[in-house]
Amino acid sequence: MIKPNFRHEINGKKLASAIAQDYETNEVLMLAFIDEEAYDKTIESGKAHYYSTSRDKIWLKGEESGHIQEVKEILFDCDKDAIIFKIKQNGGACHTGHYSCFYQKLSEDNNTLINIGKDVFNPDEVY
Amino acid sequence: MIKPNFRHEINGKKLASAIAQDYETNEVLMLAFIDEEAYDKTIESGKAHYYSTSRDKIWLKGEESGHIQEVKEILFDCDKDAIIFKIKQNGGACHTGHYSCFYQKLSEDNNTLINIGKDVFNPDEVY
Repeated sequence: MIKPNFRHEINGKKLASAIAQDYETNEVLMLAFIDEEAYDKTIESGKAHYYSTSRDKIWLKGEESGHIQEVKEILFDCDKDAIIFKIKQNGGACHTGHYSCFYQKLSEDNNTLINIGKDVFNPDEVY
Repeated sequence: MIKPNFRHEINGKKLASAIAQDYETNEVLMLAFIDEEAYDKTIESGKAHYYSTSRDKIWLKGEESGHIQEVKEILFDCDKDAIIFKIKQNGGACHTGHYSCFYQKLSEDNNTLINIGKDVFNPDEVY
């Protein structure tokens, strides 16, 4: 089975990077790290799993919120240390209630972040 | 000035992650790491700079190949440790000659990588 190259030492653990991208619009929804166990569970279940270096464990995206990511396709980059999960996002990817975690745009003077995100749920009701 | 949160220790250095995404099609072209100096040079020049942990230095994308990335917009994620450069890619992003580094798709049986990339230059002529 093809696997990513978990070659980067990130916060003390060998990991690869995983980008979650909407499979229909190509909007980038989040970036996280992944280890072999999280990758294997993603392949087995068809649902995106990642590795949290702050909690030092793998997690099923949406395990608490129900906002599961169904993996439609996986792309590998040239040296296989980064992958893209093309996904169907249920609910929203961001714990703030936005559809994408990348909801802030740098202003032209570089001094402000402008909220350009789509609010898709109320985090107070979900978490 | 707004800056990313260079909070992850990656291969021994505090870094953030930067995704390069085509500003017109939303195709993801590459993922790399970035430090404060590379971020500052990107802002000053309008051209994407990254940090290479293997070479332990910042680099202007395209400095050798001429395949510069013109930054049109910068997006920040919720905790600011990942950013997106929405770019105009000159030539191709990948040293293999493909437009995107993510030119390999995992096969349905998970055992093969299928080349789905667009060849835009001959690496033997560029590097």
